[in-house]
Amino acid sequence: MITRYETGARMSQAVKANGFVFTAGQVAADPVPSVAAQTAQILAQIDALLADAGTDKTRIISASIWLADIAGFAEMNSEWDKWVPAGDAPARATVEAKLATPAYLVEIAVIAVA
Amino acid sequence: MITRYETGARMSQAVKANGFVFTAGQVAADPVPSVAAQTAQILAQIDALLADAGTDKTRIISASIWLADIAGFAEMNSEWDKWVPAGDAPARATVEAKLATPAYLVEIAVIAVA
Amino acid sequence: MITRYETGARMSQAVKANGFVFTAGQVAADPVPSVAAQTAQILAQIDALLADAGTDKTRIISASIWLADIAGFAEMNSEWDKWVPAGDAPARATVEAKLATPAYLVEIAVIAVA
Repeated sequence: MITRYETGARMSQAVKANGFVFTAGQVAADPVPSVAAQTAQILAQIDALLADAGTDKTRIISASIWLADIAGFAEMNSEWDKWVPAGDAPARATVEAKLATPAYLVEIAVIAVA
Repeated sequence: MITRYETGARMSQAVKANGFVFTAGQVAADPVPSVAAQTAQILAQIDALLADAGTDKTRIISASIWLADIAGFAEMNSEWDKWVPAGDAPARATVEAKLATPAYLVEIAVIAVA
Repeated sequence: MITRYETGARMSQAVKANGFVFTAGQVAADPVPSVAAQTAQILAQIDALLADAGTDKTRIISASIWLADIAGFAEMNSEWDKWVPAGDAPARATVEAKLATPAYLVEIAVIAVA
């Protein structure tokens, strides 16, 4: 069975299937000009999506992080490191990429166990 | 069991395992200089790969899209939005990245339920 | 059950769950200024991570490759093509992206069947 969450014409914000939950790439709902603030918003959005899908951040197995400017790496990590549960950090890859609009400084997608 | 499709020395175009199908990043077989035209070709290639693997676009759970120039976002979406089945949109992340050759304007990889 | 390997405060280098192993994006432990040399190191690191998780490169189903400069595509492939087991090549996507530090020329993450 495939369960989709917040499904629109273009994408779903999360999809559950075969014991996994895949989130869409999350960007800040309010893209204030701060890498840390956008990261904090995104991580809260991920918490909410995982809760909707019946799981949580202790069960994330993989994360993809895109930074509009890799110079924001440490600032993004300052929020990330506070948020990751001790002992349950996922595999992760972080690279620089321009995002859908210049206002977006960070985008994060995760895969969790359902 | 792992089943591989269109397997060469470098990559397979799709691989099925544990109830999922992963496609390779698809680029247009005929990279005409149009984001819309390349997107349409890629989506048809994905349809064909999923059919080979015994599934279809209603069962895609996650898509990764790379645009050589993020300015092509709306043009890519014009094809994407027509193609995505109503109610079955996958999770998705779209970022800008230079691709293997400058002729490639779009690349798309998907994960589907088998 | 979720099993994490080389887990720190920020990430795990690999995570096993639901019959899959996801590695973190691997960068060269010794980032000498050579795409080929970094690629060879990364592929050896992936071999070691997969061995820790009880699997190996014949069971990789998907690979994500980032090159700091896409001009290194052929040089990366020279190592990749030697390493991939005949008949067992994974799905793959390769794009250009700036990585965490300028010394890193290549980053590779894989998903394997456990």
